[in-house]
Amino acid sequence: MIKLDLSHAKLDEKMSDYQSAVSEAHNWLHEKSGKGNDYVGWVKWPYEYDQDEVKRIKETADRLKDKCDVLLVCGIGGSYLGARAAIEMVNGLYPNKRPEVIFIGNTFSASYLYQILEYVKDKELCLNVISKSGTTTETSVSFRIFKELMEEKYGDKAKERIIATTDKAKGTLKALADKEGYETFVIPDDIGGRYSVFTAVGLLALAFVGIDPLEVLRGSKDAYDEYNTDDLSKNTAYQYAVARRMMDNKGYAAEMFVTYEMQLTSVAEWWKQLFGESEGKEGKGLLPTSACFSTDLHSLGQFIQEGRKCLYETIFWVDKMEHDLKFPKAKENFDNMDYLVGKDLSWVNEMAMRGTLSAHEEDGNVPNIIISLEDNSAYAFGYMIYFFFKACGMSCYLLDINPFNQPGVEVYKKKMFKLLGKE
Amino acid sequence: MIKLDLSHAKLDEKMSDYQSAVSEAHNWLHEKSGKGNDYVGWVKWPYEYDQDEVKRIKETADRLKDKCDVLLVCGIGGSYLGARAAIEMVNGLYPNKRPEVIFIGNTFSASYLYQILEYVKDKELCLNVISKSGTTTETSVSFRIFKELMEEKYGDKAKERIIATTDKAKGTLKALADKEGYETFVIPDDIGGRYSVFTAVGLLALAFVGIDPLEVLRGSKDAYDEYNTDDLSKNTAYQYAVARRMMDNKGYAAEMFVTYEMQLTSVAEWWKQLFGESEGKEGKGLLPTSACFSTDLHSLGQFIQEGRKCLYETIFWVDKMEHDLKFPKAKENFDNMDYLVGKDLSWVNEMAMRGTLSAHEEDGNVPNIIISLEDNSAYAFGYMIYFFFKACGMSCYLLDINPFNQPGVEVYKKKMFKLLGKE
Repeated sequence: MIKLDLSHAKLDEKMSDYQSAVSEAHNWLHEKSGKGNDYVGWVKWPYEYDQDEVKRIKETADRLKDKCDVLLVCGIGGSYLGARAAIEMVNGLYPNKRPEVIFIGNTFSASYLYQILEYVKDKELCLNVISKSGTTTETSVSFRIFKELMEEKYGDKAKERIIATTDKAKGTLKALADKEGYETFVIPDDIGGRYSVFTAVGLLALAFVGIDPLEVLRGSKDAYDEYNTDDLSKNTAYQYAVARRMMDNKGYAAEMFVTYEMQLTSVAEWWKQLFGESEGKEGKGLLPTSACFSTDLHSLGQFIQEGRKCLYETIFWVDKMEHDLKFPKAKENFDNMDYLVGKDLSWVNEMAMRGTLSAHEEDGNVPNIIISLEDNSAYAFGYMIYFFFKACGMSCYLLDINPFNQPGVEVYKKKMFKLLGKE
Repeated sequence: MIKLDLSHAKLDEKMSDYQSAVSEAHNWLHEKSGKGNDYVGWVKWPYEYDQDEVKRIKETADRLKDKCDVLLVCGIGGSYLGARAAIEMVNGLYPNKRPEVIFIGNTFSASYLYQILEYVKDKELCLNVISKSGTTTETSVSFRIFKELMEEKYGDKAKERIIATTDKAKGTLKALADKEGYETFVIPDDIGGRYSVFTAVGLLALAFVGIDPLEVLRGSKDAYDEYNTDDLSKNTAYQYAVARRMMDNKGYAAEMFVTYEMQLTSVAEWWKQLFGESEGKEGKGLLPTSACFSTDLHSLGQFIQEGRKCLYETIFWVDKMEHDLKFPKAKENFDNMDYLVGKDLSWVNEMAMRGTLSAHEEDGNVPNIIISLEDNSAYAFGYMIYFFFKACGMSCYLLDINPFNQPGVEVYKKKMFKLLGKE
């Protein structure tokens, strides 16, 4: 399902030198014995998730999508990035004739929220608020505003259209949900936000737009099996983790995650959170950045080709996208493009990737890692996510960093609360 | 209209030490005597643009928007990034009841183009193809496909709905436009793609969605006047350029362009092209990267706060967005958010910005540059763009780099053409 190609990565250390460190960290992940071991619930989740809850997620999504045009997903960070990545990767950016998911709860922008209010006011709505504690400020602000809209539109029936994904027992959101009688789903105690897309956090929105949660979970399970070995020669997720550390040792400051499909841009955003928030501690980590080619070859390409040598690229390539097009014959060769007549655009895109790889690697001296995924199905999405989970945990442990906390995120909150006059 | 605040930038060089270098480079820009002097047509453009052409752009846009739901803009790099930045900044991401612009011609992705074909097939369409030579491959591929769609839908009348923005006299696109009788607009010889948003390249799409080109140009003219001085103590565009060089000298690898509105994300993409493509040469330049806060504080915030100290931030702040919202009172204080009742969300967003600034600067030791723009009007857009043009030209000249070429972009093309079998 996933192939890792390190032959363009210009690595100069020996992979096998990392075997013992990898074996140790593999045990930390699987035996819950490393840093942050309270948050490794995601590791065995593909085998241990609550099947009844997933059934209820599907039933709830079916009930909602029958009567709603728009599901408002109200969450920030890990509470929306995974779902958005899945929806765009699997369904694309212009999916006709499906109900729509709109993300709120991730900004204080009045300009954005004002326009969403206008956009949805005459549509049939439901809302999924996602917060472990119910105290995330951005999410609370949006939720109060859109809860009010829902109650204006639907009165007492609003509660049938509001779903709370939150702690199983405590917190302000759980208390409200119990009082109002909202349907609730659980954010597990041992899975942090950026590792939560396989839980109700991600799965309800996916099911709403027709992406089968069971297919996503099946992908994660097969990935669990493939990457459940500490043998570095066989575990490409761990090889990717080690390659990142080798890049770090070579002095690169940034990793650029490169896709060749606009609908994978949100996968890149999800990836940036996963690695940036897991690894960026104690003055360490690789700056996560991203680009979409060939589009951005006409904006960032010059810098990569000839600018400061501060980054390497990780190409996230999908072998077979759901749709393809053949380049058409025209009445006349007005554009001198007849050399492509009858060719699949997917092939043209692949040649753009191969040409760029050669340009950057050989002429630009920029190392490239290539991660290829078979297709953009729900199953492949689940497989891919689990690959990166495993790679990220390993990558951080090799750097002696706790992959599962994010103490730095509290700093802006404290300063902001003081300015807002919160007691 | 624009304020520059360097008091959080932790600069340790003296600004005035750069005065003589700045004066010299100012003359290069205004006297067309520096590197790349064939491409400084943008400098005096606010005073020298063709008023009759702008009038014709507005008339054409009015004619098209009366009968069309969608304008397909077919271009890549500078041929779409400026227009997209303007449309999103001024009109927002969910602008109800306006005709729509969709960008094609900037990808080989069949998945994207397939969905656009489906999305637009029953809508009323017009198309603006933008290419100086007519040989840009991504743009040519999309244009042939969508030209075919237009001709299927409209037969002989398709030509009344296709506009070519291209060279004034030569090239395959100009030849086709003359033969078919398309309306044409000119890409000037002395203005490169990333400096072209004030020409027909950007203005037609803006006019189509109701953004007045004359307001954009008026902003650029007032910015010309403000930044038409080599006195560094008075020229904030040049001060920003010098600050960038000081950051470079301090060893930072990357500049992160930070916005606080999702609808400014495309301004960030435009900025990344401007600086990345202008400066990324001869192994030099600052890696341009971006984030949208507070959204991305929940993904990239941890890295910035506590990760590798490889970047500084440039906050692009807009003082007054078109829309605001007051945080509402609810029946009960179910979320403990009553401390914000009656407060403008714009104020909450500003407190988030100030709290984050303090967290990053003081606790995180990350320097911050703040660029504040008065509002998100068409006039402000024009002003802001010209500010960055001037800053970018100066920034590159201070680095002894030609700001106006992009030789590195050709490398991937050559390799790709070989793989595609182009002769």
